[in-house]
Amino acid sequence: MHEIQPSQASGSKAARLRELLAGPSVVRAVGAHNGLTAKLVQRAGFEAVWASSFEISASHGLPDASLVTMTQYLDATTTMDATTDIPVIADCDTGFGGPLNVAYTMRCYERAGIAALCIEDKLFPKMNSFADTGQDLLPTEEFALKIKNGKEAQTDPDTLLIARTEALIAGMEVSEALDRAHAYVTAGADAVLVHSKSRRPAEVLEFASRWDSNIPLVAVPTTYSTVTETELYDAGFRLVIYANHGLRAAVKGVQDVLGELSGTDRAQAVEERIVPMADVFALQGMRSAFRTKP
Amino acid sequence: MHEIQPSQASGSKAARLRELLAGPSVVRAVGAHNGLTAKLVQRAGFEAVWASSFEISASHGLPDASLVTMTQYLDATTTMDATTDIPVIADCDTGFGGPLNVAYTMRCYERAGIAALCIEDKLFPKMNSFADTGQDLLPTEEFALKIKNGKEAQTDPDTLLIARTEALIAGMEVSEALDRAHAYVTAGADAVLVHSKSRRPAEVLEFASRWDSNIPLVAVPTTYSTVTETELYDAGFRLVIYANHGLRAAVKGVQDVLGELSGTDRAQAVEERIVPMADVFALQGMRSAFRTKP
Amino acid sequence: MHEIQPSQASGSKAARLRELLAGPSVVRAVGAHNGLTAKLVQRAGFEAVWASSFEISASHGLPDASLVTMTQYLDATTTMDATTDIPVIADCDTGFGGPLNVAYTMRCYERAGIAALCIEDKLFPKMNSFADTGQDLLPTEEFALKIKNGKEAQTDPDTLLIARTEALIAGMEVSEALDRAHAYVTAGADAVLVHSKSRRPAEVLEFASRWDSNIPLVAVPTTYSTVTETELYDAGFRLVIYANHGLRAAVKGVQDVLGELSGTDRAQAVEERIVPMADVFALQGMRSAFRTKP
Amino acid sequence: MHEIQPSQASGSKAARLRELLAGPSVVRAVGAHNGLTAKLVQRAGFEAVWASSFEISASHGLPDASLVTMTQYLDATTTMDATTDIPVIADCDTGFGGPLNVAYTMRCYERAGIAALCIEDKLFPKMNSFADTGQDLLPTEEFALKIKNGKEAQTDPDTLLIARTEALIAGMEVSEALDRAHAYVTAGADAVLVHSKSRRPAEVLEFASRWDSNIPLVAVPTTYSTVTETELYDAGFRLVIYANHGLRAAVKGVQDVLGELSGTDRAQAVEERIVPMADVFALQGMRSAFRTKP
Repeated sequence: MHEIQPSQASGSKAARLRELLAGPSVVRAVGAHNGLTAKLVQRAGFEAVWASSFEISASHGLPDASLVTMTQYLDATTTMDATTDIPVIADCDTGFGGPLNVAYTMRCYERAGIAALCIEDKLFPKMNSFADTGQDLLPTEEFALKIKNGKEAQTDPDTLLIARTEALIAGMEVSEALDRAHAYVTAGADAVLVHSKSRRPAEVLEFASRWDSNIPLVAVPTTYSTVTETELYDAGFRLVIYANHGLRAAVKGVQDVLGELSGTDRAQAVEERIVPMADVFALQGMRSAFRTKP
Repeated sequence: MHEIQPSQASGSKAARLRELLAGPSVVRAVGAHNGLTAKLVQRAGFEAVWASSFEISASHGLPDASLVTMTQYLDATTTMDATTDIPVIADCDTGFGGPLNVAYTMRCYERAGIAALCIEDKLFPKMNSFADTGQDLLPTEEFALKIKNGKEAQTDPDTLLIARTEALIAGMEVSEALDRAHAYVTAGADAVLVHSKSRRPAEVLEFASRWDSNIPLVAVPTTYSTVTETELYDAGFRLVIYANHGLRAAVKGVQDVLGELSGTDRAQAVEERIVPMADVFALQGMRSAFRTKP
Repeated sequence: MHEIQPSQASGSKAARLRELLAGPSVVRAVGAHNGLTAKLVQRAGFEAVWASSFEISASHGLPDASLVTMTQYLDATTTMDATTDIPVIADCDTGFGGPLNVAYTMRCYERAGIAALCIEDKLFPKMNSFADTGQDLLPTEEFALKIKNGKEAQTDPDTLLIARTEALIAGMEVSEALDRAHAYVTAGADAVLVHSKSRRPAEVLEFASRWDSNIPLVAVPTTYSTVTETELYDAGFRLVIYANHGLRAAVKGVQDVLGELSGTDRAQAVEERIVPMADVFALQGMRSAFRTKP
Repeated sequence: MHEIQPSQASGSKAARLRELLAGPSVVRAVGAHNGLTAKLVQRAGFEAVWASSFEISASHGLPDASLVTMTQYLDATTTMDATTDIPVIADCDTGFGGPLNVAYTMRCYERAGIAALCIEDKLFPKMNSFADTGQDLLPTEEFALKIKNGKEAQTDPDTLLIARTEALIAGMEVSEALDRAHAYVTAGADAVLVHSKSRRPAEVLEFASRWDSNIPLVAVPTTYSTVTETELYDAGFRLVIYANHGLRAAVKGVQDVLGELSGTDRAQAVEERIVPMADVFALQGMRSAFRTKP
């Protein structure tokens, strides 16, 4: 169906993501919200897709606040996986409820072939981490139980469950973030994402410098965007996620073009600012569609 | 939920679309593929959203060839309607099968509150009209029967069923396109979309000059993009659809930004080319989400 | 599409449900889990369908524990509404999260044309009320806020939001149940469902005798099944829901027939215990399907 | 999640279905329409589930006429697979369109872990084979192309694609059915289902006696229900599908119980004719849900 054929024959995507994380350089993932943006992530040369709950909820025109359902996230994530041959990391918010929801989520995502899931220690229903509102976290042991349940429900040994701590987002100290992260590793987490909304990378770098585990660390440099991948890798991070750049680029592109189109009286005016139909045809695999025609 | 509140109190969207089409100027619709792009269409000042099957299938990373199901089109279209307060015109391809499918589609879309549906006289499964492949059309009377069945299934008198003829796309003469269109009007069509892939507007303008009905005409100036809205209005067109510009703008935006991000080593490099998080928050209604928080 | 045509012309289903509740006799609703069982509820002469979360989750083969998503519940409920012309009362569990989720749920269900929603004061994720496990309730004011948010999001004045208190299920006194119910009415609830798992109707009858409001009461006599509708009506209940009988009847029917089929070697052995194909054809509207055929 | 754990470790379901078909006795499949009825099929001791399009469309209250979409069939089928550890055979009607749709369907069903797909040589949109209406078939070579495309899209060598010929349903001779079936085998079909609506098994037995291939044959003894499994096996059939018995048993169960409940005034009256809540709890895995609770 797709011009880019998923190379499932040569090992699962989960296995490949594990290999990448053990490799000699930082793994780069970029946020996407549908099959097309996922394909553009792959085309641009990144190693993984971040199926961002922020991007997916925004693409529905809904707040990033646990309104979009697991069914809808899974549909979007599956579409992204189907259109790419790089691993997709699913942003699963809080795991959509309690420990039982996490176990069920693991089952559903594994069935759909998703390489990695990430869950975070905020309360359900969640609010986006960059929202100007307080954040309440689950007690450490309750979130650890969610990790444990997720891992127990897993059937493919290669699937990754990433524990994301929002301790720094919630205003806690780095030491609290570390305590939480270590507890999550004990519970079975395959990687730890330490989130931060600081304008500077100091707190995540401090976290990494005090990290006492072989489990890989994950960074999301949305606000501390001046940090380089090399700095993050040297500090111990193995995965860097540009978590919302697909959507923010799409909004800019659409907004500018529609603004211009609105002020003119013919389509030709914007043609240089949009891709030709042929480019979209290539992305959506129209050529292979013709081949299959009787 | 949304910053922009649907004004359902003041008449249905279908009624408003009918008013617009009877108004003194051309109605402008723009293609969208999800709730967010629909919202951007409204924000830019257009009067209607075109829930484009090309955009929706491409956003799934799939060829525009009847692979995306009615369920998925309806979901996407409903999301667009929920996030806007302008009418949404649903691009329903062939009506997803035969006359019974059209009747069922009408029922489902009306239930979801969609103002207008558009079906076309190509065979199912369809192939995109701009694809470099031949097109086979249904016999006129068979497509007229589909229109008739759709209209009989309708329960809200204001809902519009737009008949789209692909006669010119299929290489037929303007007279054949006119014969088809008149038959569709007799069968109950509320408007007629005459599609063309000519680089120049001559054939749609000729069609309009020979049009013998009060039923409004619809144009999609994708290839003949030099034509102005005034020229189209003067020729008799009441609705102009920029059918795929939302997606083509999104692809350009994402492609350029990810290309640049790929070649650098920190997110800051692309920040001027993407919208800030706050803009997306506003679009997705995060502020009203906070207000609802306990 | 359906043999039984929805009579949407003569007032909405929500308006009719309000009329029924103000009428001279008890309104009877029965649990269903898909379009077909909803149709059977109507055929048997009942006045409303209860789109039961227990039935729907069990039909998915999943525990009744907030695993089935709002998307899936809404799909099932919409299908039930589309196949019947009696009101459908949606069992919406906890409202699928907090106050914002309730507001969003109201929006989505109203858009789909559902007459009434019922939400309960248990914590999310919920566990079925008859499960042999403790139940924790939301503080009264927090649940009242959910009711308030739901009502504020409502656009059709006839839609009903039913507040269900699980106080008796959670082992609280009748007076606590009354306090909660009165608070929910103050917050805007259109009816109150007082749930009980007692083997005898004493506690719900006591609740009704002390009920100090004109707002109608709702009973679900699953465990206290000896009570008659007349006794409930005389005590003040206006709606009686046989909440799980559609599914429990289906399981018995399927289990017995498959057990017998399993022990024999030809299908004829069970033919007297199943309905003929023609009966299913009639239920699913095959006749009208033929009529629509070209 | 489920009491019955899918034993994915010990070989795929597709591999097991292949083993069963090569085994010394007839394989028995029974129709189901949701996770619960699939579980009851397994519990009763059958070897496979038939995810029947007739059952699924009827459960939606819709005619069996290509109205239910692939999305909905896939959802229902995936749910059945998730709740059982026996292979699920998906009834995919015509493959939901042309050759490209079949290829896409194969991709989607394989991703969801479904062991086998069955497609038939009727035209899209289809009408149920037992409907009192004529049936038009695709030309043999066009359906063979659909089989070929489906097989080429397959990635797991064990997945089965069953070709179903409706030649006898359409009133053709056994020799025409044989010609079609042989052509489908040449195109890659893994098994052949020869459908019949004769009241007697003579024509399918004649078909089997003249079958010239090692590819297994499949029978659906709905109308010729007097035939025994032994007779079918001896004639060469390896799979017998009781294709609609789950739903027809469910309708009978629900209809009878609701009829009785309708004529009485308390729930107790029907309690002996329905299963206890505890039985449904066991089927839906409530016990394991408790265990996961924190």
